[in-house]
Amino acid sequence: MYEMGVVYRNIQRADRATADALAAFGSATVHEAMGRVGLMKPYLRPIYAGAQVSGTAVTVLLHPGDNWMLHVAAEQIRDGDIVVAALSAENTDGFFGDLLATSFKARGARALVIDAGCRDVKTLTEMQFPVWSRAISAKGTIKATIGSVNIPVVCAGALVHPGDVIVADDDGVVCVPRALAQKTLAAARAREANEGEKRAKLASGVLGLDMYGMREPLEKAGLRYID
Amino acid sequence: MYEMGVVYRNIQRADRATADALAAFGSATVHEAMGRVGLMKPYLRPIYAGAQVSGTAVTVLLHPGDNWMLHVAAEQIRDGDIVVAALSAENTDGFFGDLLATSFKARGARALVIDAGCRDVKTLTEMQFPVWSRAISAKGTIKATIGSVNIPVVCAGALVHPGDVIVADDDGVVCVPRALAQKTLAAARAREANEGEKRAKLASGVLGLDMYGMREPLEKAGLRYID
Amino acid sequence: MYEMGVVYRNIQRADRATADALAAFGSATVHEAMGRVGLMKPYLRPIYAGAQVSGTAVTVLLHPGDNWMLHVAAEQIRDGDIVVAALSAENTDGFFGDLLATSFKARGARALVIDAGCRDVKTLTEMQFPVWSRAISAKGTIKATIGSVNIPVVCAGALVHPGDVIVADDDGVVCVPRALAQKTLAAARAREANEGEKRAKLASGVLGLDMYGMREPLEKAGLRYID
Amino acid sequence: MYEMGVVYRNIQRADRATADALAAFGSATVHEAMGRVGLMKPYLRPIYAGAQVSGTAVTVLLHPGDNWMLHVAAEQIRDGDIVVAALSAENTDGFFGDLLATSFKARGARALVIDAGCRDVKTLTEMQFPVWSRAISAKGTIKATIGSVNIPVVCAGALVHPGDVIVADDDGVVCVPRALAQKTLAAARAREANEGEKRAKLASGVLGLDMYGMREPLEKAGLRYID
Amino acid sequence: MYEMGVVYRNIQRADRATADALAAFGSATVHEAMGRVGLMKPYLRPIYAGAQVSGTAVTVLLHPGDNWMLHVAAEQIRDGDIVVAALSAENTDGFFGDLLATSFKARGARALVIDAGCRDVKTLTEMQFPVWSRAISAKGTIKATIGSVNIPVVCAGALVHPGDVIVADDDGVVCVPRALAQKTLAAARAREANEGEKRAKLASGVLGLDMYGMREPLEKAGLRYID
Amino acid sequence: MYEMGVVYRNIQRADRATADALAAFGSATVHEAMGRVGLMKPYLRPIYAGAQVSGTAVTVLLHPGDNWMLHVAAEQIRDGDIVVAALSAENTDGFFGDLLATSFKARGARALVIDAGCRDVKTLTEMQFPVWSRAISAKGTIKATIGSVNIPVVCAGALVHPGDVIVADDDGVVCVPRALAQKTLAAARAREANEGEKRAKLASGVLGLDMYGMREPLEKAGLRYID
Repeated sequence: MYEMGVVYRNIQRADRATADALAAFGSATVHEAMGRVGLMKPYLRPIYAGAQVSGTAVTVLLHPGDNWMLHVAAEQIRDGDIVVAALSAENTDGFFGDLLATSFKARGARALVIDAGCRDVKTLTEMQFPVWSRAISAKGTIKATIGSVNIPVVCAGALVHPGDVIVADDDGVVCVPRALAQKTLAAARAREANEGEKRAKLASGVLGLDMYGMREPLEKAGLRYID
Repeated sequence: MYEMGVVYRNIQRADRATADALAAFGSATVHEAMGRVGLMKPYLRPIYAGAQVSGTAVTVLLHPGDNWMLHVAAEQIRDGDIVVAALSAENTDGFFGDLLATSFKARGARALVIDAGCRDVKTLTEMQFPVWSRAISAKGTIKATIGSVNIPVVCAGALVHPGDVIVADDDGVVCVPRALAQKTLAAARAREANEGEKRAKLASGVLGLDMYGMREPLEKAGLRYID
Repeated sequence: MYEMGVVYRNIQRADRATADALAAFGSATVHEAMGRVGLMKPYLRPIYAGAQVSGTAVTVLLHPGDNWMLHVAAEQIRDGDIVVAALSAENTDGFFGDLLATSFKARGARALVIDAGCRDVKTLTEMQFPVWSRAISAKGTIKATIGSVNIPVVCAGALVHPGDVIVADDDGVVCVPRALAQKTLAAARAREANEGEKRAKLASGVLGLDMYGMREPLEKAGLRYID
Repeated sequence: MYEMGVVYRNIQRADRATADALAAFGSATVHEAMGRVGLMKPYLRPIYAGAQVSGTAVTVLLHPGDNWMLHVAAEQIRDGDIVVAALSAENTDGFFGDLLATSFKARGARALVIDAGCRDVKTLTEMQFPVWSRAISAKGTIKATIGSVNIPVVCAGALVHPGDVIVADDDGVVCVPRALAQKTLAAARAREANEGEKRAKLASGVLGLDMYGMREPLEKAGLRYID
Repeated sequence: MYEMGVVYRNIQRADRATADALAAFGSATVHEAMGRVGLMKPYLRPIYAGAQVSGTAVTVLLHPGDNWMLHVAAEQIRDGDIVVAALSAENTDGFFGDLLATSFKARGARALVIDAGCRDVKTLTEMQFPVWSRAISAKGTIKATIGSVNIPVVCAGALVHPGDVIVADDDGVVCVPRALAQKTLAAARAREANEGEKRAKLASGVLGLDMYGMREPLEKAGLRYID
Repeated sequence: MYEMGVVYRNIQRADRATADALAAFGSATVHEAMGRVGLMKPYLRPIYAGAQVSGTAVTVLLHPGDNWMLHVAAEQIRDGDIVVAALSAENTDGFFGDLLATSFKARGARALVIDAGCRDVKTLTEMQFPVWSRAISAKGTIKATIGSVNIPVVCAGALVHPGDVIVADDDGVVCVPRALAQKTLAAARAREANEGEKRAKLASGVLGLDMYGMREPLEKAGLRYID
């Protein structure tokens, strides 16, 4: 959080297979599997609907109106990474467009998560390079001040260490710490194991009240029915 | 508004045929037909574009971060209902996802209107179960505190009684009190009766200034033209 | 900015060919070509994705909850215009719907940019009449107070004179002063000239760090790499 | 909520002594005494610190940018009333200033609660006429459209009927339905009865954990202490 | 609006006596005297209550997170000026603190109006150097990018030319164009001429309904009284 | 960030003398001394003006609408601590009032920093127990769900470890990591060393342009003066 002007080149990434496997569960299930933590704030939205990805975080700390460090970050990207860009102060400028996306994609990045604005969204949609951002803005940025790459950052309220796993979809973005990735994957799998059965029961008209055994605790909590 | 921990089982729903017929007019026309009242605030947005529904309200009052009462509400749903969920304090958590939607749908619900967040939006879109919410958020909720079902609630600034008619589309959500449903339907029909004619005139280049006879009142109001 | 109740009928529009040519470059490039100025705030969003237009501004100053002057503005529209509607105070009501759009389109308007709300978005999308607005709201407006047409206005933070060029797309809305339109077009063309080449290089894996010669200035700025 | 253009002259006010007695408890205690309901949203703020009032509601429904009905409401004020002004759409204009305050005060009003803006705050502070508003704005309003007086309104998210009790202080504004005023007063008194004792204990260093007997339920809930 | 990197040294200021005289009327009256225009948005708030000033505008255009041009502006300040700082993109950093205030004050500035953040507010309050800002933030800024001084700017939604008169108080900030200053002063004086008489009448219990002759127009508008 | 239901009893606090000494410099200087990092977002505001404190952090993670863990945190407070309360999701309820403040004060706490709402602000002001919060709200909370005490938390965008130093005043709140406290104190002292001299120069009319030698870099950056 506190080092400015540094680029860490050797980061320890979460296990690739684990990181890759988390995408299928989506942000909601993964966040539940972690014990309902790790979510970025819901003001981060995908620039187009339908993308669902996971990958290992390359982090970057930017200053308002200045995207210089995104070029520095590009060099640190490896196949399967997701770039997570935090800001030193709130800003909605368009830090990222189709040229940077072309470069990130060429380096192997799967997505960008940025606590600021994005532009060229039409082209990014055509390229199918997903971005989660707090704004869409045509406002350009300068290249004047250095930040850092691959330090721990707070992005949209969530702490992200380089190498953590990022899972993002239409519901939002969650960060899974590297050390918890394996365990979280197992928990996510367990959660989903009987979802199909539950869904079938509910679809047949069985109530959650009965399926989850809620009637007694609700009565104990004092719920009264009035005809 | 003021009873906690109660579920009213027998509510008086607006006439089904009337409630169903209002969907076709959309929220804007219905709100005009009521005398420009009854709208929920525009921060409520549909999770996908294109849905246009009407139905009778089953109301529920929830507490921040707790979706327990949505399960209680499910049992009170009848065919043609729309669930309207109000919150006791502002909150954007994801109270509703695909499992609850499966249950609501099985019980006959047409939509959910919630003054909080929603998740699993990709699946909800695939299911074509429309939700109007103030946020999309992967954040899960707990089941610890009881609220109420089928009491009058204030949802996104609008007062909704159980059994009122809800009309929702891409423009927003409007609540038609049960007692006014019939009259509102008639007024909506009257409003639309000559819309086609107006549209044709405007499309041919006739100005609203002339079609609506606005030139004289504008002049009286002091409007000056300068060449 | 300061005249109320006036309609300027004879405004000097930017050269048609220039105004038309700017659409292809999009708001981000045009804003850069002007020296990174002229953008409206990013809270203005298109009501549907994919529209990309340019045209000459017919301006209108409206009061909260009152769309009377949009009818007055309609008469001043000529082929190739874009209506720019500013508000005398913040408001999100639905000032504009399908009937006004039919009229605007018939008069030759290409789009509406409004620092307030819009409604009938489903129909507007079907008509492919693009609107950039700060809100979508079914809330209707009255016709009681006069404003002005074709005076300079501040719309979403940007100063717009009648006859200026408006460029709008998924990234936002930019205003090019009439006197700068020609020069801005030339600058936009120059900017795009070698974009293809840059894109190809980046796509092949060349880094911006090298392509833009950033390594030396970054080192001078004190950037340190840590292994 | 749904009648426009009406003024109800004979409203049933809550008992004066009860309404007056609630001020001393403040909004937080009264809201707790009601079962944690009835609060207006926290965006309503007092224009100066320190005022703490209660009184019976005279309600008024206003349209954006139009304060005409505040003059109509003035005539309905009786000694001990608090005017509650709701808006038909979100607006921050300065609907109320020192002249209206002089009139309201002369009629016996104790305060204004308005879901819009207020101006002349320096003079209002000198007059010690408290206002809870969502904004302070010099923006003037017009007198062109009629609303209603003494109908039920939704103000800052809370339903208010004419004659209900309003309690307002630095913490916010709460509405106590007329029928619940007496019971709420009793509950508020009971709540405060042993506050002094609790405060003394806590001040002496006794922990809430012990005073409220929380250790066991926390342990049951799974709380673990780690040295 | 469109020149970057320029400082206009010779600006034409509004007449000093006129500019000075406007302070006494306050922002609300001056805005009414201009025909209800010219106000900055209400998110601009004074850092302390009670200041009421007027003066001639020295304008400056800043970039997010960069206060370099405030130092350039300092040199252009003359006795009786108010500095008006606009931003090229939304930003809440603390651009201005006690050192700059000391400098501004020494040069003769009466206040700062800034569409961004301010810091050192405790010291500024002690110095009684008033600032109207959109935020208070300890966040520091850099000195890397040039903007402009004494060009027309849009600050908090209002167009300000160098030399215009700024009037600011607890209610907000209004800009009076230089050419309208004399006329506005006269109108403000006329407005206030009979305020004392009005206030006395209202204080005695006379209703605005009668004093302003509103009963007939309200009846014509359809207002109904119900006993 | 990721452990729920745990209370760390033995935390390593920053050196007391260092933690205490930082208050005098204020949040702006301390944040600059750290290299312009560590600030919480500016939406956190003090409930009354003038407080300026520093202390060591006891952290707590709360859930929306539930203040149970503040009672658990009270027991972990030692003399000179500041409680830092983070939320697992955005919420503005009034988590903290005069009873908890009495308890916190009795345990030796100097202040509370909470990314949620606070109530009883009149009494807290009288007690001179300062709170920095995102809202003031009378809304009460429940005691149903456990969080954690003394784990790392993200509060208003800043990462805080238990034992870090918190510095808060009218400008905002900054977190100084324990390991950097000594170095930051030295840097803050160095920064302030020649502030008096600078202030005197600026007060005498010397320009920052000259005092900081900005004229040459401004010229190099292309700044042009126009007479």
